[in-house]
Amino acid sequence: MRPLILVTNDDGIAAPGIANLVEVAKEFGDVVVVAPDSPQSAQGHSITIENHLRLYAVDMFDGVDAYECSGTPVDCVKLGKFVLFKDRKIDLCVSGINHGSNASTNVIYSGTMSAATEAAMEGVNSIGFSLENFSMDADFTATKHYARKIIAHALEHGMGDANLLNVNVPNVPLEEIKGVKICRQAKGFWAEEFLEAKDPQGRPYYWLTGRFEYLDKGEDNDIWALKNNYVSIVPVMYDLTHHSAIDSIKGLETL
Amino acid sequence: MRPLILVTNDDGIAAPGIANLVEVAKEFGDVVVVAPDSPQSAQGHSITIENHLRLYAVDMFDGVDAYECSGTPVDCVKLGKFVLFKDRKIDLCVSGINHGSNASTNVIYSGTMSAATEAAMEGVNSIGFSLENFSMDADFTATKHYARKIIAHALEHGMGDANLLNVNVPNVPLEEIKGVKICRQAKGFWAEEFLEAKDPQGRPYYWLTGRFEYLDKGEDNDIWALKNNYVSIVPVMYDLTHHSAIDSIKGLETL
Repeated sequence: MRPLILVTNDDGIAAPGIANLVEVAKEFGDVVVVAPDSPQSAQGHSITIENHLRLYAVDMFDGVDAYECSGTPVDCVKLGKFVLFKDRKIDLCVSGINHGSNASTNVIYSGTMSAATEAAMEGVNSIGFSLENFSMDADFTATKHYARKIIAHALEHGMGDANLLNVNVPNVPLEEIKGVKICRQAKGFWAEEFLEAKDPQGRPYYWLTGRFEYLDKGEDNDIWALKNNYVSIVPVMYDLTHHSAIDSIKGLETL
Repeated sequence: MRPLILVTNDDGIAAPGIANLVEVAKEFGDVVVVAPDSPQSAQGHSITIENHLRLYAVDMFDGVDAYECSGTPVDCVKLGKFVLFKDRKIDLCVSGINHGSNASTNVIYSGTMSAATEAAMEGVNSIGFSLENFSMDADFTATKHYARKIIAHALEHGMGDANLLNVNVPNVPLEEIKGVKICRQAKGFWAEEFLEAKDPQGRPYYWLTGRFEYLDKGEDNDIWALKNNYVSIVPVMYDLTHHSAIDSIKGLETL
C-alpha cells in the first residue's frame, strides 16, 4: 500500500501554495487534503469548541480526495485523524506551502505550523513548508524542489529523533539556493505598531501592524540561514517545559 | 512607584476567575486589566489580522482600570503593551484564573497561557494561573492563596532563569493541598471523538469532543502533581527548537 499523506495549510484550500504541495505529495503516496475553507493565517493552535464544524468533500485537485473545513488548521488535522482516518494510519502530514516565512518565533503564531504540530502530537511525522514570500503569485519552484527531497527522505529514512520539522525556503530562484541548514529557532519578537483610526461613529479602532525584531547574533539560526540563501530546517517540539530553568525556581516549593 | 501588573485571561472579562485574580494583584501594585469581551478558550496563540480590534474602557473592578477587547487573549496583551503602555514598563503579567486545568499539552491550546507567553516574548515576566475546575461557580480560595504567594515571590525575587510560569491548582479545599511542586509538562494528547449529527437540512456537522490520554509514568510532571494534591508550576519556554534532535537530522543538509 502506498503511504497515506495528509495535506493541510492555513492560507485556505484555494491558496496556490497548497496546490503546489499536493502536486509534490502525489508523487509519493495516497494524498488526502483537509484544509480550511477560508484564510486562517496566524490562528496559532486555536481549535473550535464554541461552534460545530463543517467538513465537505470538494473536487479541486486532480485525482486527490479533498475536504474543506469551516474551522482552523488544527481542526482540519483533528478531523482528518479522528473522522476520516479513524481506521487507517496516516504516514505523513505536510502543511503549506505557506505564503510567507514561519521562521523564528513566527512558528508560534502560524496556523500552518500549528497544524503540523497537532499531527505530530497525534503520533504522525509532520513537516511544515513555508516560502519567504507573501504574494499569491509567488514562484514555488524552489520550494517544490526541496519539498520533494525532504518528503522522500522522511518517508524512506524517517526523521531521526524529530517528528516535526519547520522548513522555510528563501525567496530566491532555485539556482541561487546554497543548500539546506539544520537550525535552531532564531530569537526575535514582533514590536507592534497598532494603526489607530476612528470609525464613522467616531469610535476608535486598532489594526495590528508591526515590525519583526531580530535579536539573534548567531549563525546557526533559521533567519540567518534564509538571509544567506539556505533552506532552513528546524526540528520542533511541543514539550514547552523550560527544563534548564527548573532548578532555578525550586525555591517556590517552600511557599 | 508601585509595580505595574497587567491582568488578562481567556474566559472573558466577565468570568469570575479574572475577578479573583484582580483582587490578589491589587495587593501588590497598580493593576490594569485588558481582557477579551467574550469567551476565548482554546484560542491558542491566535491573533487578529483580518479584522480591526476594539478596546473599550469598562468599570467592572473596584478602583482598577480595565479594558475589554474584541480580540483574542494574545491581542489583549499586545494592545496592553503597545497601545496602553508604550511609555511605561509592565512589571508583571498575570493571566487567569482559568476555569479549567492547563496542565500537560493543554498549555499549547490555552488562550490563558498563550497570553502569558506573549507577554514573556515581549520581555515581561509572566504567570498563568488555572484551577482544575471548569465551573463558573468554582471556589477560588486555594488558587488565590497560592497566587498571592507566587506573585509576591516573583515581584520580590524574580523568577530565576524562567520568565514564564504555568501554575495549576488542584480542585480541592486549601487545607488538602500538600504544597507546590516544580514540574515538567506531562506527556499526553487529546484523542478526539467528534460528535457527528445532521442539521435540519440533512447536512452533516461535527462537534469536537474528546478524552485526554495521559501517557506519562513519571512523578515529576504536572498532572501527577495535581492528582496528588500539589500545586504544579512548570517553567515554560517559547524556543520550540528540539535541540537534542538537531544532530539526528544533520543528514538532511546533503539533500
